[in-house]
Amino acid sequence: MAEVVRNKQVIFKDYVNGYPTVSDMVVTSDATILLELPEDDGGLILVENLYFSCDPYMRNRMTKAMEGSYIDSFTHGSVPYSGYGVPRILDSSHPNFKKEDLVWGLVNWEEYGLIKDTSSIIKIQHTDVPLFYYRGILILIDFCNALGMPGMTAHVGFHKICSPKKGETMFVSSASGAVGQLAGQFAKLFGCYVVGSVGSQEKVDLLKNKFGFDEAFNYKKEQDLNIALNKYFPNGDIYFENVGGKMLDEVLRNMRLNGCIVVCGMISQYNLAQPESIHKLFLLVMKRIRMEGFIVFDHYHEYPKFIEMILPLIHEGNITYVEDITEGLENAPAALIGLNSGIYVGKQVVAIAH
Amino acid sequence: MAEVVRNKQVIFKDYVNGYPTVSDMVVTSDATILLELPEDDGGLILVENLYFSCDPYMRNRMTKAMEGSYIDSFTHGSVPYSGYGVPRILDSSHPNFKKEDLVWGLVNWEEYGLIKDTSSIIKIQHTDVPLFYYRGILILIDFCNALGMPGMTAHVGFHKICSPKKGETMFVSSASGAVGQLAGQFAKLFGCYVVGSVGSQEKVDLLKNKFGFDEAFNYKKEQDLNIALNKYFPNGDIYFENVGGKMLDEVLRNMRLNGCIVVCGMISQYNLAQPESIHKLFLLVMKRIRMEGFIVFDHYHEYPKFIEMILPLIHEGNITYVEDITEGLENAPAALIGLNSGIYVGKQVVAIAH
Repeated sequence: MAEVVRNKQVIFKDYVNGYPTVSDMVVTSDATILLELPEDDGGLILVENLYFSCDPYMRNRMTKAMEGSYIDSFTHGSVPYSGYGVPRILDSSHPNFKKEDLVWGLVNWEEYGLIKDTSSIIKIQHTDVPLFYYRGILILIDFCNALGMPGMTAHVGFHKICSPKKGETMFVSSASGAVGQLAGQFAKLFGCYVVGSVGSQEKVDLLKNKFGFDEAFNYKKEQDLNIALNKYFPNGDIYFENVGGKMLDEVLRNMRLNGCIVVCGMISQYNLAQPESIHKLFLLVMKRIRMEGFIVFDHYHEYPKFIEMILPLIHEGNITYVEDITEGLENAPAALIGLNSGIYVGKQVVAIAH
Repeated sequence: MAEVVRNKQVIFKDYVNGYPTVSDMVVTSDATILLELPEDDGGLILVENLYFSCDPYMRNRMTKAMEGSYIDSFTHGSVPYSGYGVPRILDSSHPNFKKEDLVWGLVNWEEYGLIKDTSSIIKIQHTDVPLFYYRGILILIDFCNALGMPGMTAHVGFHKICSPKKGETMFVSSASGAVGQLAGQFAKLFGCYVVGSVGSQEKVDLLKNKFGFDEAFNYKKEQDLNIALNKYFPNGDIYFENVGGKMLDEVLRNMRLNGCIVVCGMISQYNLAQPESIHKLFLLVMKRIRMEGFIVFDHYHEYPKFIEMILPLIHEGNITYVEDITEGLENAPAALIGLNSGIYVGKQVVAIAH
């Protein structure tokens, strides 16, 4: 007879204005779940969640009806928070997934869950995973990172949207973050000169010593971003935009003719009631700049090609990844909130079960 | 023996902040010119100017060292103003140009002039000109318009940068202006649904009745641009951007996923000390929008192809053009200043001699 267990969940309480806090979420063990699939369930999958990925885009789901949003806002007060994660399958009536399979995709922030829509999950092929590089269970974190959504985002942004050429210079903001660290490494491997901005000296060192960036600076210590950019990224070719706001205006001033700005995100703006003003957009004309936004969701059909590209890089030790792992579902809200404060170094991951 | 004559000129006095006025230029007849080429002149061309074209980009040349500018600022106080125009050749020692040839290109704002750099002028091939459509001398104005820089700009912006598809919707701001009226007509001929914004009811009527736009509105009469755009351009495909500022923010709100903004100019911003704030750029990500600036200068190598495309359209009466002709070089400063006030309808041209 199947066991009924308490199912710890992170519940989103209400829509947020300004900076979110841990009190916008509540961790509860009120719910219970039967650890067995119902009969005639039509292809349900029962999972135990192992890892959750904390990503900047999630802040936008906490805003009510964000204008033009690419993703639905959370329904407040009734359902668990959700995001990318790695669950293990406990039971499955779906022909393509079986018990003990590991998958990667969109899951609720809870210990156990039922997955109905398998279009949002991808089975992790164990044979693909570079065991010699990531030890034991740690391989799974990869799917919150280089092999998952952030890796695919960095790949699409750099290789597809930028149309880069060898020898070009690229500037990445929020460069030690989940996407930035990979975008920079892809650009280095491609043959670009790469500069990154981050918010601490520790992260500057990380970019230069661990990720192989050519230059890096701490934007919080620069009196004048224009001067800093003019020093590190004069007449630059590609801007991999992760932050928005004032940085964007100053980068526009320092780009070359026919440069490209790939707009991946604008994390500095997500918590502001009114986004910062941009004033230098006429430079798009003066400098014939292409500025293009993209969302990784649109490109998932190319995921197999991406995996083919990145696995050899990981196998050969050419891609590295730094993550900050928070232990325990009860600490997940704090991990998510911390994304905006810059206190974490590298990709933020929550481990629920090992 | 050659005649020495007075040479009326428009001299640019000093760099401008804010809105230029006629007093920023001075019309003088102090200079004289010998109406004969010097011996051993190395390929000089002596011209009499017939028409000048007044174009929004010229305002940017009146600003000292404009950041990232694609064109040199005027040298103040010493040389005549300059821009596109149609001169007739009075004398030439250049093998490719002869007396009585008509040319189109960059000329000084003066009655007579010497052209040294023939890379900036193009000979008008009389056989190409649609005489049956434009009567007599009026054909020359075409070279300030559809066949010249504005026409080429509209062509490059629409056909090359937008990558349009039949059936798409396009919104053009400053739509009765030199470039806007042609961009809209190119889009109609291509099979798009075209909406324009202008600053008066007279111009609205012009767009709908003369240029064949599907819809048009007077932005000065709209309480809320977002509501107007939502009515006329809901979920729009292409924005042909000529004005910048608040209109751009409101257009971003009304574009569809994967839309395109081709940035041709931002005339509403040229006279402001601080450009208006743009706040909605994150919609580039949300809606995966490509926003691309361009400058026609970069595309002049394709001018012969453009002429091949547009001449049949003009021959068949499929392209029309409205211009406002100011008579006399002494009125040229007022004509140029008037560009920003919206008082003129259609393309602004100055006729110096017939």
